[in-house]
Amino acid sequence: MAINVAIVGATGAVGVEFMEVLARRNFPVGKLTLLASKRSAGTTLPFKGQQITVQELTADSFKGHDLALFSAGSGVSKQYRQACVEAGCLMVDNSSAFRMEDGVPLVVPEINPGEAAKALQRNGGKGVIANPNCSTIIALMALAPLHREAGIKRLVAATYQAASGAGHAAMVELQESTRAALDGKPFTPKVLPLPYAFNLFPHNSPWIEAEGYCEEEIKLRKETHKILGDSRPRITATCVRVPVLRAHSEALNVEFERPLNVARAYEVLRQAVGVTVREDRAANRWPMPLEVSGHDNVQVGRIRVDTSNPNTLDIWVVGDQLLKGAALNAVQCAEVALLGKLAPNANP
Amino acid sequence: MAINVAIVGATGAVGVEFMEVLARRNFPVGKLTLLASKRSAGTTLPFKGQQITVQELTADSFKGHDLALFSAGSGVSKQYRQACVEAGCLMVDNSSAFRMEDGVPLVVPEINPGEAAKALQRNGGKGVIANPNCSTIIALMALAPLHREAGIKRLVAATYQAASGAGHAAMVELQESTRAALDGKPFTPKVLPLPYAFNLFPHNSPWIEAEGYCEEEIKLRKETHKILGDSRPRITATCVRVPVLRAHSEALNVEFERPLNVARAYEVLRQAVGVTVREDRAANRWPMPLEVSGHDNVQVGRIRVDTSNPNTLDIWVVGDQLLKGAALNAVQCAEVALLGKLAPNANP
Repeated sequence: MAINVAIVGATGAVGVEFMEVLARRNFPVGKLTLLASKRSAGTTLPFKGQQITVQELTADSFKGHDLALFSAGSGVSKQYRQACVEAGCLMVDNSSAFRMEDGVPLVVPEINPGEAAKALQRNGGKGVIANPNCSTIIALMALAPLHREAGIKRLVAATYQAASGAGHAAMVELQESTRAALDGKPFTPKVLPLPYAFNLFPHNSPWIEAEGYCEEEIKLRKETHKILGDSRPRITATCVRVPVLRAHSEALNVEFERPLNVARAYEVLRQAVGVTVREDRAANRWPMPLEVSGHDNVQVGRIRVDTSNPNTLDIWVVGDQLLKGAALNAVQCAEVALLGKLAPNANP
Repeated sequence: MAINVAIVGATGAVGVEFMEVLARRNFPVGKLTLLASKRSAGTTLPFKGQQITVQELTADSFKGHDLALFSAGSGVSKQYRQACVEAGCLMVDNSSAFRMEDGVPLVVPEINPGEAAKALQRNGGKGVIANPNCSTIIALMALAPLHREAGIKRLVAATYQAASGAGHAAMVELQESTRAALDGKPFTPKVLPLPYAFNLFPHNSPWIEAEGYCEEEIKLRKETHKILGDSRPRITATCVRVPVLRAHSEALNVEFERPLNVARAYEVLRQAVGVTVREDRAANRWPMPLEVSGHDNVQVGRIRVDTSNPNTLDIWVVGDQLLKGAALNAVQCAEVALLGKLAPNANP
């Protein structure tokens, strides 16, 4: 079986990771077409030892393809959805464009794999799978198994989000502005709205006036409910952009419906696919973004009893934003939808 | 009135700030004696245009002084407490050595100023005022006024703590390791236990086995209870070291006993001494460490209703760790104890 794959946004931070992930999971790629804006067309990118030339994205790009992995922003996803789906090509979309749309499955394959196949047009689906928000995926890799075990009643989340969530240009800006700061030189932010070197700020997504949350925080609540298929967990979040390159960390305070002790929580998470427990009490070492970067699994640790509230645990989770938060999850969605099973993580 | 002041740990990150703060608050300094380890003795530091030579700290150093500001670690504070107090010199101690000791007041002058004078030996006190943990001070600048207004029932805190909390050497290590990372060169951490460039990690204070919290998190709970004089608020925290130089940020989820709306919370905080409300909804701008660095006031913003729980607000607070988290608070303690009043913040 060979699957012809198109990558939309091939030159972006996630686009490059799509190729890495397809290769290292031995995804049965037939033809691979790299698509980007006119500006990037003509550049070449490597895939399995071959150089592939990036083509300009047009409405005709999807013919003859089985799968399109999109990561070029909501605008591009909305513009090309119809062309992609009408070509009979499964769209796995990394943007937020369709996540909350009825009938579009929002999938974390370790959590709700059965939803993925419902996207297929031959099953009467809309031909689109939405890839959830990165912070939501990373939190839920730890939380969904615990929710099944003891029922999440309430979650208070604080995030420590990396530059990569705002794309490759934001990663470069973090590096360039930091070098300028070290050299005592001025730097004017071009990608992010605020100075980033040795700084952090509440997430730069739009502030939603009615509730006071930013869009990122609302995504964490609404997408969690859709992925879990359960809107009972009450959720609040504070999302913060920190000067880290590509892995998100999250401090999760989780109140459960039923008692759950630390030992049992770890036992559940040690059995969870795609999760690594990182817990070295003697050395006082826990998951951290530098060590998680480049790895497929989400790492969980520092689970402890919250002494301030019954049935509550504090949990620390870290995941690579470009991999499980984006490219890896999207390729896994394609695996469960088109191949019927998840390949094991090659680089846990 | 002239007060003869000794600074213990004068060459450290907080030591330097003690001098800055004394100068800009027009503290009535008579003689100023700078004290440090034998290794640093002989160096000179500027104070109000004069160069002052650092002397080696000995048990005789405190004679003829009215006030000693200590910031040289718990060991030094314990070693020289008796010599200081027996010399009739008020000790304001920035270490954690005596914070929880009965009879030693733990003071944030805007919150419990009346406690400070109780330290004076002429009042039968022990001659020691303890300066609280930096994260605790910064959180309480926002929380104490709201506690008086509506009663804190439960606090879930997540911190984003700067390098300065681990001293000047940690600030230098953050800069040097970051430059090495940008240059693609190896760097071996010497001050902090973990790589810090573009990284973060759960706070490097000791893990307390019985509870699973680290020491910093336990300080936040216990010191809050002592400062508020109220052990009813239930508190949990996750303390994290982030790659920021000198200002701590904290995401506080606060459940109150009584209803408190956002407008009233801001009104209370706008009236609070030492607090600046930073709230620009149109520009989506809130307090951030780079803008707070070098400023005396703690900044508060992004207050919003937590839709997941009754009577609960999410609050974002940022304060300069070296100033309100350390040197400024200590000098203010001396002001209320020795001068009977707090000078206004010169650089809010």
